[in-house]
Amino acid sequence: MHVHVDFCLIPLGGDVSVATEIAECQRVFVERGLTAVMHAYGANLEGEWDEVMAAIKECHRRVHAMGRVRISSTLKVGSRTDRAQSLADKIARVEELLARKS
Amino acid sequence: MHVHVDFCLIPLGGDVSVATEIAECQRVFVERGLTAVMHAYGANLEGEWDEVMAAIKECHRRVHAMGRVRISSTLKVGSRTDRAQSLADKIARVEELLARKS
Amino acid sequence: MHVHVDFCLIPLGGDVSVATEIAECQRVFVERGLTAVMHAYGANLEGEWDEVMAAIKECHRRVHAMGRVRISSTLKVGSRTDRAQSLADKIARVEELLARKS
Amino acid sequence: MHVHVDFCLIPLGGDVSVATEIAECQRVFVERGLTAVMHAYGANLEGEWDEVMAAIKECHRRVHAMGRVRISSTLKVGSRTDRAQSLADKIARVEELLARKS
Repeated sequence: MHVHVDFCLIPLGGDVSVATEIAECQRVFVERGLTAVMHAYGANLEGEWDEVMAAIKECHRRVHAMGRVRISSTLKVGSRTDRAQSLADKIARVEELLARKS
Repeated sequence: MHVHVDFCLIPLGGDVSVATEIAECQRVFVERGLTAVMHAYGANLEGEWDEVMAAIKECHRRVHAMGRVRISSTLKVGSRTDRAQSLADKIARVEELLARKS
Repeated sequence: MHVHVDFCLIPLGGDVSVATEIAECQRVFVERGLTAVMHAYGANLEGEWDEVMAAIKECHRRVHAMGRVRISSTLKVGSRTDRAQSLADKIARVEELLARKS
Repeated sequence: MHVHVDFCLIPLGGDVSVATEIAECQRVFVERGLTAVMHAYGANLEGEWDEVMAAIKECHRRVHAMGRVRISSTLKVGSRTDRAQSLADKIARVEELLARKS
């Protein structure tokens, strides 16, 4: 099963800055060859369900290993059986509509 | 790794009602012996990371099999290494604080 | 516009425990006469759009006033124009389906 | 109160495609002069709390007016009192860390 996941990890407690932890997650995705596009409130991931979910588990594991004792992540998980659609397709389709009207 | 997950599945397109699909997800959790407490905007799950995530994947699989071609789920995933805490503990702690003040 | 909102507030940094802040949010909802049903990963709110959103803004304001300098909340916001449906209706409908099948 | 909001609107029922509705939301943000950066699973917004939330309410109103009777949106809402930080700052900080290590 192919999935699109929007992933946002938040460590609780300790340092109010979380950039180090977010950078570590980005490294996890790159190491595993996953498509991972960062935005200002998370990252869009694309791939097979099990691979994407294993990468997210590894993010929790590594951020705990960095000394963060509590984590809360938010995921949006999209799957569809009617047709293949990439992350880039989704944005392109909306931009096409915006260009047409204006 | 033990996790708390708040899970909300939304089928896109077709029938505007989603109760049948939500009920099917609840059956998945019960069949697998997972702690699953429904609320009006999702369900709280508790268990080992792999078991909870496998159950959620099965929800996507079954809802697709019911003819829903597109699904978007939202998950909040909480893990902590400092201490064991159940879903019930979390609510009890807040209720204790609320009772103390009033 | 009537809304259902599932609300989960997370303070970042400082104390790893967040029960005090969650209890304060619950007080905000009660003070304002909003239907607010806590669960282990947030609270379900129901009411007019502006009232519910004003209460959530007040939660951010008060939690900042408690010394928490950074907050990230997650909201699911449901509105529908086809029919009135309460939070309780949603759960009752799923439970009815679950009872029928078993 | 300044906020960062990650916003994702999902119409339920009817057409499985949602690009038309997402494009309409993007128009709402542009019309109101809000910083709105689309990604493949939503849009990052930045501005004053009341303005951002009013724009999101307008998105629900317009998508209902397009004939969509049921909507479920997911919002992540970030506020901080320790310092000003733009959406662009957040990404730049993580990218700086990623560049340093490699």
